[in-house]
Amino acid sequence: MVETLTQQEQEKLLSQIKAAKAFSRQLAVLGETAKNQALELIERELLESVEEVIAANKLDLEEARKNNTCAANMDRLTLNEQRIQGMAKGIRNIINIKEEISRVEEGWKHPKGMRISKVRVPLGVIGIIYEARPNVTTDAIALAIKSGNGLVLRGSCHAWHSNLAIMAVVERALKQTTVPYEGIQFLQCKARESAKLMLSAKEYIDLVIPRGGEELNHFVTQNSLIPVLGAGGGTCHTFIDETADITKAIEICYNAKVQRPSVCNSCETILVHKNIAAKTLPRLAERLREAKVELIADEQVAKYVSGTTAATEADWSKEYLDLKVAIKVIDSLEAAVEHINHYSTAHSECIVTQDMVNAEYFKQHIDSACVYINVSTRFTDGEEFGFGAEMGISTQKMHARGPIGLRELCTYKYIIEGEGQVR
Amino acid sequence: MVETLTQQEQEKLLSQIKAAKAFSRQLAVLGETAKNQALELIERELLESVEEVIAANKLDLEEARKNNTCAANMDRLTLNEQRIQGMAKGIRNIINIKEEISRVEEGWKHPKGMRISKVRVPLGVIGIIYEARPNVTTDAIALAIKSGNGLVLRGSCHAWHSNLAIMAVVERALKQTTVPYEGIQFLQCKARESAKLMLSAKEYIDLVIPRGGEELNHFVTQNSLIPVLGAGGGTCHTFIDETADITKAIEICYNAKVQRPSVCNSCETILVHKNIAAKTLPRLAERLREAKVELIADEQVAKYVSGTTAATEADWSKEYLDLKVAIKVIDSLEAAVEHINHYSTAHSECIVTQDMVNAEYFKQHIDSACVYINVSTRFTDGEEFGFGAEMGISTQKMHARGPIGLRELCTYKYIIEGEGQVR
Repeated sequence: MVETLTQQEQEKLLSQIKAAKAFSRQLAVLGETAKNQALELIERELLESVEEVIAANKLDLEEARKNNTCAANMDRLTLNEQRIQGMAKGIRNIINIKEEISRVEEGWKHPKGMRISKVRVPLGVIGIIYEARPNVTTDAIALAIKSGNGLVLRGSCHAWHSNLAIMAVVERALKQTTVPYEGIQFLQCKARESAKLMLSAKEYIDLVIPRGGEELNHFVTQNSLIPVLGAGGGTCHTFIDETADITKAIEICYNAKVQRPSVCNSCETILVHKNIAAKTLPRLAERLREAKVELIADEQVAKYVSGTTAATEADWSKEYLDLKVAIKVIDSLEAAVEHINHYSTAHSECIVTQDMVNAEYFKQHIDSACVYINVSTRFTDGEEFGFGAEMGISTQKMHARGPIGLRELCTYKYIIEGEGQVR
Repeated sequence: MVETLTQQEQEKLLSQIKAAKAFSRQLAVLGETAKNQALELIERELLESVEEVIAANKLDLEEARKNNTCAANMDRLTLNEQRIQGMAKGIRNIINIKEEISRVEEGWKHPKGMRISKVRVPLGVIGIIYEARPNVTTDAIALAIKSGNGLVLRGSCHAWHSNLAIMAVVERALKQTTVPYEGIQFLQCKARESAKLMLSAKEYIDLVIPRGGEELNHFVTQNSLIPVLGAGGGTCHTFIDETADITKAIEICYNAKVQRPSVCNSCETILVHKNIAAKTLPRLAERLREAKVELIADEQVAKYVSGTTAATEADWSKEYLDLKVAIKVIDSLEAAVEHINHYSTAHSECIVTQDMVNAEYFKQHIDSACVYINVSTRFTDGEEFGFGAEMGISTQKMHARGPIGLRELCTYKYIIEGEGQVR
C-alpha cells in the first residue's frame, strides 16, 4: 500500500520541521542550569504520570497482540512501572553529565600571531526515526535538550499512544521553563511518506539517526539527503579461542545471548575454535538450553551436540533478536577474524582468550565499533559506557562509532582571532 | 550526453575499488617509519619528474584553452615548477606530522572493573572525487598513506594527462617500498558514470569527499550511498562592523578577495555597517579597483561608489571565484549575522571590529566552520592550520568541519578488556 500525504499534511510536517530549526538557535545558547531544570521537571512529570503512560502503552500492546507481533518487538514496546522509572533514571543520568558546550577542545597560535581555537558547539537539529520503543522518546529528548540541539522525532505507529502520552508529559514540563517546547517536534503523521519528507529536509535537519533494525537503516540511507548516523542492527559475535577459560567463555556467551535477547548488543553468532570444540560445545549447549535457546549450528557443531537446527549461509548474517543463536566451529583465530569482518554489522564482537598475543591480534584486526576481550557484548550501551544515555549505537565510521551520547551530538567550529592578519 | 559504461569498464572499476579495500588492511597496520619512507620516495620522485609532469600538464592546458575554460579554472589546473615544489612541500609537511594511529584518546574503568579505551584507527577506504586541480592528487595520496587508509581517486577529465603523470610518479616510488601501490587506485575512466559507480560501492568505500564547487557537491550528495564529507564551495563573507579599524578592514577585504580569488576561502561578499558606509566604501572601492576587482553592489553602496554593477538577489549566494565581489550596506550586527547564516555555505566568515562584545556575538551566532575576528578568511587551509595538508574543507557538521587533515581521516573504536564480566 502506497500511502501519500495530502498537501495539508505536507505543509504541517514541514512547518514543524522549520519550527525545530528556528527554535534550535535558542536551545543552542541556553545555559546548563536552565537545561537541567527543564530536565528535572520532565523527570518529575514522568514519574507523576506513570499510570497515564502505562494506560496509553496498554492500547499499543493490545493492538500489537492482535497483529501477532513477535516476542522481541513486544518486549521492546512494553512499558511498566520499572521501565518508566528506568526512563526517569536515564533523564537523571543526563542531568548529571556535564554538557561542555562552548568548551575549547584545542587551541594554538598561528605563526602570524592569531589564536585558533576549536570550540564544541551543538549540531543544530537532530532527526530521529525509530521503531516501537517508547523509552527512546525520553532518551532522545533529554539528550537533545542537554546538548542544545533541536529535535525532530518520527516514532513508529506501533508505539503511537505511548509516544503521544510521553510527549504530553514533556510538553507539560517544558511549558513551565525557558526551554522552548517548539524546538522538540514530534511528527504526528503515521504514513511512511512522512519519514521521506523528513529525510529530504536538509536545510533544516543537520543529522538523522535511524534507530531500529537493518531494514530501517537501509530505508533511511537510501532516502536521506541529510547525513545519516547509522544506528543499525547488531550481528554481534563471540569467539571462543583455543586458549579460552571455558567456564568464563560459557558464561559470557550465556549472558550475551540470554540476558536481553531483543536488543542490538546481544550475541547472534558464537564461533568455537576447533581445538576446544569437543570439550566446549556440549557444556555450552547444555547451558544455553537451560534458557531454551535454539541452537542453529553447522555440521561440525552437530557432531558434538544433538538436536541442533542446521545453519544455512543466511544464518551467519542474521540478527535473531530472540532466543536463537548460530554456532560454528572455526579453524583458527585468523579465520574467526575474517568470518566476523565479513558477516558482522560492525557493532560489537568478543574474543574469549587467555593469550595476550591473540587478544592483540583480535583488537587490531576486528573492524567493529566495540571490541571485547573476555567481556560480554551486552555492555555496548551509552549508560554502561558512562555517557548518561544514548541516542542509539552507531555501526558506521563517520562522526561517531558505538554509543551515541551527548558529545556525539555535538560538532565544533574554529574561531580565529587576530589583529588584521592577511596572507 | 548520457555516457554509459560497458560491462567490461564496470568490472574493471569495481575490481580497482575492491583492490583498494583489500589492500587497505595492510595500510592500516603499517608503521609510521615505513609510511614516511614511502612518502619521502614520492617527494623525491616528484621533484625529479618536474619536466615530465609539466609536459603532461601542458597537454591539459592546451585542451582547456581550446574549450575556453575560465580564468579561475585555468589557474587551478596550471602546474609550474613552483607549484610542483609546493606539492612536494605538502608531502614533506605530512611526513613531519605525527599520525597517532592506535593512540588511546581516552580510557576509563567500568564499575565492574573492565578497562574501556577509545583508540584512534584509520577509516578504511577513502574516495575522493575532485575537479581539475592536479595538486589534489598528491595531497590526497600522501594523506591517505600517512593515515593508513586505502584511497580511490576519481579526477577530472580536464586534468587527465597531469593526473596520469603524477600517478606514474607515485607508482615508481611505491614500487620500491612495502606500502602496497594497490591500496591507492586512480579510476581511469572519463565517463561521469564512473563516479556514480564509485558512489554506490558502499561495501568497499567508507567515506567519500567531493572536492570542487557546489555542483559537484550536490551531484555527490544526491548519488552517494556512502557517507559524504562535504567539501563544498565557499561563499565567504567579510563584515565591516561600525567599530572597525577601517584601514585594517580594507586590507583584510583586499587580501581575502585578491590574493588568490580562485579558491574556496576567498571572500565573495563584503557587508558594510551603514554607520561607516560613507567613510569606508569609497576607500574600499578604490583599493579593490587597484586589482581590477569588479564591484557588484546594492543601491546603498552605489550612493557612495560610482561605476558598480547592480547586484541581484542571486549575487548574495554566488561563489565568483574571480576578481568580482558583492558589496552590501547592512543595518546592524544582528542583520549581518542573519544575512550570513542565510546566504553562506557555512565555510568561513570574518568580522572586522574593535568591539569585543560584537566579536563575541558574531563568534557565538555565526553557524560556519571557521569564524574570523579581524583576520582574512584566506587562512582556512589545512597547512595554515598546522595539519600538514588537507583533503578539502568540510562545510557540513558531521565528523569534520573546516580543513580535513590527517586526524579527520581517522575514526575510533572502543576496546573493552576484562576477565569475564557479564551484565
